[in-house]
Amino acid sequence: MELLERKIIEEGHVLSESVLKVDSFLNHQIDPELMKQIGDEFAGRFADKGITKVLTLESSGIAPAQMTALTLRVPAVFARKRKSLTLNQHLFTAEVHSFTKDTTNEISVSKDYLTAQDRVLILDDFLANGQAAQGLMNLVEQSGASLAGIAIVIEKGFQEGGRYLREQGVHVESLATIESLKERKVTFQREEKFL
Amino acid sequence: MELLERKIIEEGHVLSESVLKVDSFLNHQIDPELMKQIGDEFAGRFADKGITKVLTLESSGIAPAQMTALTLRVPAVFARKRKSLTLNQHLFTAEVHSFTKDTTNEISVSKDYLTAQDRVLILDDFLANGQAAQGLMNLVEQSGASLAGIAIVIEKGFQEGGRYLREQGVHVESLATIESLKERKVTFQREEKFL
Repeated sequence: MELLERKIIEEGHVLSESVLKVDSFLNHQIDPELMKQIGDEFAGRFADKGITKVLTLESSGIAPAQMTALTLRVPAVFARKRKSLTLNQHLFTAEVHSFTKDTTNEISVSKDYLTAQDRVLILDDFLANGQAAQGLMNLVEQSGASLAGIAIVIEKGFQEGGRYLREQGVHVESLATIESLKERKVTFQREEKFL
Repeated sequence: MELLERKIIEEGHVLSESVLKVDSFLNHQIDPELMKQIGDEFAGRFADKGITKVLTLESSGIAPAQMTALTLRVPAVFARKRKSLTLNQHLFTAEVHSFTKDTTNEISVSKDYLTAQDRVLILDDFLANGQAAQGLMNLVEQSGASLAGIAIVIEKGFQEGGRYLREQGVHVESLATIESLKERKVTFQREEKFL
């Protein structure tokens, strides 16, 4: 997606060989028109998949999930990250390890909003090691819902998550795939490369 | 806003005389079409106010802020709730006390995304005691930006926040104002009452 790649080039900050900060349009400030185009693009790529729900993780997934769900005319649900203070039988929960922060968070979603009748599109802002995606897939599995695919705004192609998920047969669509962040420079992966 | 009031009546759960749960369309699952209508309504109510930025708080404010900002054609920014692990000179921070949970959270926004040139519309899902709104106003003040007003999806009219903010001369617009949650029933405040 050209507009997204341009934004990444113009406004992204490469903090290290594995960390890209895009706080100006996705992770802190939000560019609403870009979110709309992202939503339309995902809705197009997953049209005719019978999706009944878009599942994301708070907080950065919410704006693109809202726009994707709006175009698909289905509800969005955001899994919560914070540890629940009270035990709650009415939640599906999974653990997500963050390699960047070296922390493990519990994510959860209410049993009211993910059921065996749902066909779920998982959406997240970044795909790196795939931990968040697998945590969300775990919630979908527990609910008995089926997984239509995974929509990713920015994939770090140099990390393992995307390959691992695709090897499992999951339909993953990423709008920008980064090949490298070396030398403080963003290089995108091109399909042509594999011809 | 009639559609919102209908949703509250049909899907809201009154947990006590002060707690209303609207997880099916706002706080956990999101109704994207309702968010669009909320965004359009806020954009209309604050049209011609010279707004340059919509400021909200993660996570439940993000979807309505995205839609309001989209219609106003300005960026949205979500303040973060989590405690920052590292001291960061580049943040505006404020404390927000939650009476419901009896906790105090630090909220923060990067100095990159709130500046003295901004004219800010604060948006939040609920207004009760006004603690979150005041925390967000505090961030706006620190930045030197001016405040255009406060957009609230659901106001608890029986709590003090709304009156206190309006007495300070703040332009507060709420799309649904609840007069009472007594007897497990939602009663809305009507303008007619004050004629």
